[in-house]
Amino acid sequence: MIDLRSDTVTKPTEEMRKAMYEAEVGDDVYGEDPSVLKLEETAADMLGKEAALLVTSGTQGNQIAVLTHCRPSQEIILEAESHIFYYESGAVSALAGVQTRTISGHRGAMDPHAVRDAIRGVDIHYPETGMISIENTHNRAGGAVVPIENMKSVYEIAQMHKVPVHIDGARLFNAAEAVGVEVKEFAQYADTVQFCLSKGLGAPVGSIIAGSADFIRVARKWRKRLGGGMRQAGIIAAPGLIALTKMKDRLGEDHANARKLAGDIQNIKGLRVDNQVETNIVVVDVKELGVTSQEFVAKLYSEGVLAGGFGPTLVRFVTNYDVSTEQLNQASKVISRVAASCQ
Amino acid sequence: MIDLRSDTVTKPTEEMRKAMYEAEVGDDVYGEDPSVLKLEETAADMLGKEAALLVTSGTQGNQIAVLTHCRPSQEIILEAESHIFYYESGAVSALAGVQTRTISGHRGAMDPHAVRDAIRGVDIHYPETGMISIENTHNRAGGAVVPIENMKSVYEIAQMHKVPVHIDGARLFNAAEAVGVEVKEFAQYADTVQFCLSKGLGAPVGSIIAGSADFIRVARKWRKRLGGGMRQAGIIAAPGLIALTKMKDRLGEDHANARKLAGDIQNIKGLRVDNQVETNIVVVDVKELGVTSQEFVAKLYSEGVLAGGFGPTLVRFVTNYDVSTEQLNQASKVISRVAASCQ
Amino acid sequence: MIDLRSDTVTKPTEEMRKAMYEAEVGDDVYGEDPSVLKLEETAADMLGKEAALLVTSGTQGNQIAVLTHCRPSQEIILEAESHIFYYESGAVSALAGVQTRTISGHRGAMDPHAVRDAIRGVDIHYPETGMISIENTHNRAGGAVVPIENMKSVYEIAQMHKVPVHIDGARLFNAAEAVGVEVKEFAQYADTVQFCLSKGLGAPVGSIIAGSADFIRVARKWRKRLGGGMRQAGIIAAPGLIALTKMKDRLGEDHANARKLAGDIQNIKGLRVDNQVETNIVVVDVKELGVTSQEFVAKLYSEGVLAGGFGPTLVRFVTNYDVSTEQLNQASKVISRVAASCQ
Amino acid sequence: MIDLRSDTVTKPTEEMRKAMYEAEVGDDVYGEDPSVLKLEETAADMLGKEAALLVTSGTQGNQIAVLTHCRPSQEIILEAESHIFYYESGAVSALAGVQTRTISGHRGAMDPHAVRDAIRGVDIHYPETGMISIENTHNRAGGAVVPIENMKSVYEIAQMHKVPVHIDGARLFNAAEAVGVEVKEFAQYADTVQFCLSKGLGAPVGSIIAGSADFIRVARKWRKRLGGGMRQAGIIAAPGLIALTKMKDRLGEDHANARKLAGDIQNIKGLRVDNQVETNIVVVDVKELGVTSQEFVAKLYSEGVLAGGFGPTLVRFVTNYDVSTEQLNQASKVISRVAASCQ
Repeated sequence: MIDLRSDTVTKPTEEMRKAMYEAEVGDDVYGEDPSVLKLEETAADMLGKEAALLVTSGTQGNQIAVLTHCRPSQEIILEAESHIFYYESGAVSALAGVQTRTISGHRGAMDPHAVRDAIRGVDIHYPETGMISIENTHNRAGGAVVPIENMKSVYEIAQMHKVPVHIDGARLFNAAEAVGVEVKEFAQYADTVQFCLSKGLGAPVGSIIAGSADFIRVARKWRKRLGGGMRQAGIIAAPGLIALTKMKDRLGEDHANARKLAGDIQNIKGLRVDNQVETNIVVVDVKELGVTSQEFVAKLYSEGVLAGGFGPTLVRFVTNYDVSTEQLNQASKVISRVAASCQ
Repeated sequence: MIDLRSDTVTKPTEEMRKAMYEAEVGDDVYGEDPSVLKLEETAADMLGKEAALLVTSGTQGNQIAVLTHCRPSQEIILEAESHIFYYESGAVSALAGVQTRTISGHRGAMDPHAVRDAIRGVDIHYPETGMISIENTHNRAGGAVVPIENMKSVYEIAQMHKVPVHIDGARLFNAAEAVGVEVKEFAQYADTVQFCLSKGLGAPVGSIIAGSADFIRVARKWRKRLGGGMRQAGIIAAPGLIALTKMKDRLGEDHANARKLAGDIQNIKGLRVDNQVETNIVVVDVKELGVTSQEFVAKLYSEGVLAGGFGPTLVRFVTNYDVSTEQLNQASKVISRVAASCQ
Repeated sequence: MIDLRSDTVTKPTEEMRKAMYEAEVGDDVYGEDPSVLKLEETAADMLGKEAALLVTSGTQGNQIAVLTHCRPSQEIILEAESHIFYYESGAVSALAGVQTRTISGHRGAMDPHAVRDAIRGVDIHYPETGMISIENTHNRAGGAVVPIENMKSVYEIAQMHKVPVHIDGARLFNAAEAVGVEVKEFAQYADTVQFCLSKGLGAPVGSIIAGSADFIRVARKWRKRLGGGMRQAGIIAAPGLIALTKMKDRLGEDHANARKLAGDIQNIKGLRVDNQVETNIVVVDVKELGVTSQEFVAKLYSEGVLAGGFGPTLVRFVTNYDVSTEQLNQASKVISRVAASCQ
Repeated sequence: MIDLRSDTVTKPTEEMRKAMYEAEVGDDVYGEDPSVLKLEETAADMLGKEAALLVTSGTQGNQIAVLTHCRPSQEIILEAESHIFYYESGAVSALAGVQTRTISGHRGAMDPHAVRDAIRGVDIHYPETGMISIENTHNRAGGAVVPIENMKSVYEIAQMHKVPVHIDGARLFNAAEAVGVEVKEFAQYADTVQFCLSKGLGAPVGSIIAGSADFIRVARKWRKRLGGGMRQAGIIAAPGLIALTKMKDRLGEDHANARKLAGDIQNIKGLRVDNQVETNIVVVDVKELGVTSQEFVAKLYSEGVLAGGFGPTLVRFVTNYDVSTEQLNQASKVISRVAASCQ
């Protein structure tokens, strides 16, 4: 099977497996796991933040950010199809008690004026604005990069109103690779950042949340409450460190593959690539074929290609480390054949 | 002063005051206040519901509805400028732990197709849809009536997906008066309804929440948790009963006054009535005058007319029982004078 | 019927009814109700606090105190049978997300050493201690007065650890009357105080929460979220003001009546007065009669006396304004007759 | 250093490291990780439950149990020094909104009569009882085993009142080893069970929560909300499976070592073993030495022995896989020397 459902399916590399095997570990609840400490330090450095914390998933990192920044009854501003709002099972209101104020963005980026207008004034009828979240790259916008200038504008507005900004950067390294900068160029326009060691970077498990030392101190306790405090977490941190240091430079391959795939699909009758491909996500509309995304995905499956439904007629393909260029060419052929069979 | 800020400012009538003075009371926590029981029964009847509960405010009624219908982590669908989302200080996420999914409506009415699309499917990443809320009349849409047919369509979709529908009917009697039907014509397309005894109906304090007997049984306990369980609540219920039975038929006057006021304002240079006036709310845009709503409201104030800011350049006037037609004419003149002075 | 179930059943006096009839009112959400403002000012003065807020019930006052003092995940220290823990339907954890740490007291008073030991140190495994609550008088301890010296000791410990102290003083005026001091003598050893205008003071509806001006500012917004923001709340405040100023001095009668009742019951075979009667509550154990409290209460009821079950074999009588000394004598006779019939 | 602070400090064995290295993995969010599936199936089997779920910590397992069993405003009954109440940072009220009703146990076991009396009846003032939790073995009771008969009695009461029972069995395998039965003998008297793969079983990370298939289906979604949904979780499951199948039979060694250590300490002047040693925990009181536990622990540390403070004068030692009998003898000598130096 050629698995293009998500970059989350990538399996640990031989080097990562070896790192786990040999990992120096300790009890991280006591703060004694050297592999975890090294990973957290390295990550904080790369993001230009004082401190970082290993968590078990992007969702956990995002939830901890909200729990640490906000109080119940506050409102958070976030893009209308952002992961925190769309894909985290309502956790943000269930756990942190915050109200979600969504803004429809353009390719994942919220208009700074709309953000400014959404920040609440002082009134007994209004929730206070507790946080602004930016997802970068933006998954449902097809892996679009939220431009640095947009982030800067939002951050300036936020600072003026003393509202913290968080980046849901599950795929922030893809954004940095696409733009050709270091991740800290993005991270400078936020108080806190979450990114995933799994996904394109290929680690089996783990995400990082970074911010000020004070923030991380409180966040650590929220991690404990969510059950994310682990013991010999070095077995997760060791491959995570390889992901962070050695895998980030190969994300360009995924992006090239995605562009290649999009180009192929563009030429297939009845299919429309639904977005400008900036990173490793290709969203395709099958509407013209007269089938649902579910039907199209099922047909692909029976021919050995895995893709994901992304809406009634949208199908998502995500290039990743475990799919070679050769396999990708094979996938293009399958997609073409399946599209032809639908007509 | 001529107070057009809101219909909430109306003072109890002589008849209401007398009713309080003479109210037969008991301890309502024990279920023994005859005035409360009579009010609740009357209200349930008028709405065509099994049971009703006296609460201290529209906000409390809405919050209890969500707490009773939903579980934390569920999502509620509601209009993007609805009171629950816009004006209840984030309570719905703080208290009930639900995520707010907003849909921008047309004159307060959500497109039934948009509602259908917003109901979540079964997926580990999705919150469940726990409730749909309809505000009728819709305050920020300028007192617009959400049409019965729209409500019917939304209700049918909701029932298909087994999602309860709640009406935030703080001014539902205004809607009924405007359309010329009984409130139960609207209430039939919802599982629960909240309406206010204060506002246009003129009672000093109180709202009603109505639904099935089972719903009200659980709601009563949530009211207790919110501290809404009162002792000799008959002193609130007695004037409330007068509001409910004797005041509803005079809402037409407020509506006629509002149309009159809107007509007058229409003719004032630099002012634009921002909505089709269906009930007792008139929203006016002062943008062309080159002033902010705050400035305009301040000028009106200094001339004896109270109005409310409703956005950067929007001013809201609400006709009500305490403002006579004569006073309204006077208000029109003041508004005209103030507008002229801005140019 | 002679109603000794609770002091909550008292009906408004003629003077209170008149006050409602004549009440000067305004919209309290706008802060414009003169009767409310006067009541709040008077109450703050009597308690020696900067500011006060009218709420609809003791439960609402307590919940707002916790919501304002604490953050979710904190722990509050309170007596094991205190009202907040025992009788508020779990609201304190549901709404404010705090964990309840209970200490069994002696006649309602917690040992200051036990309080000190219960305050949590700094550790990632520990909740922070967010508040200490003292119930005075203590209902389930039979209306016992928590001594001022005990309160002082607890308050000193609390201040040392920067933990706020709240008094659930639903019947604080009874404590003050019993000890012969002003309520501010108690209130000085707490950051915030809640007391009820209903109960012994006889108002139909309402409680007060008092504290610093900053505290009340935030509390006001939590009141709004709970739906406790009312419009012409003066109709509640006006009789409340009479309760506060004119009724407090008659609580001594209730206390004398309670002592009288306890003395009578002491002499009845098979009944044991379960507590030293300090205020207006008499708890009686019917165990020796071989009946349950439920059975005993039912028998009293059929003879025209209302009392409350307070445990498997405990029955509670609360003297109040609506029960005259004559009626009380009558009640003693009924109790004696019923006890005799059980043997 | 000889580390007797906790059994959580054990490092993965060579076999576990190899298992990680070779682990067959997949994306567990898609339910495709074969190592995770095998671990969950094996665990469910051993506990006699329909289904099981891998979580990242005991705290996470406990929190998910409460979130799945309960609704906000319910009350849970648990031992006064249980881990959920004492050591989970107030998470249970912060996340699940439940009130904690504690009962002081005897060696960790709650008196079934006390449990029965604590279950709430139906009353508008009462929270509903949502869950009963039993910690077995009980950490703060010095690793005491809650007897099977006690669990049976509590379970029967719980079933009569339709209240679910949860076992916080972080060290349930120690209980089973001590009594000489399979864990399912304990698990049969509970609806859900959590146990740790780390601690005595030696896995680097992970716990299991088990129950009915329906329960686990809902629990899986709560795990996702807490951020416990991991990708290639097989790298955690693979060593976990070894812990579960190969390490459980060696817990007897830890118990023998603990008894040996307790015997040695018994003979040291000034020290008192504070509990009957049933499993792998030895709690020692240093009061007679006139030092605090903190001071005693610091002295031990400077001589190469790590122990944990467990109260003002209590010190906890936990035997574990990484401490050999020889090291234990060495530790005894150090403890003796340090005790002597205190006198």
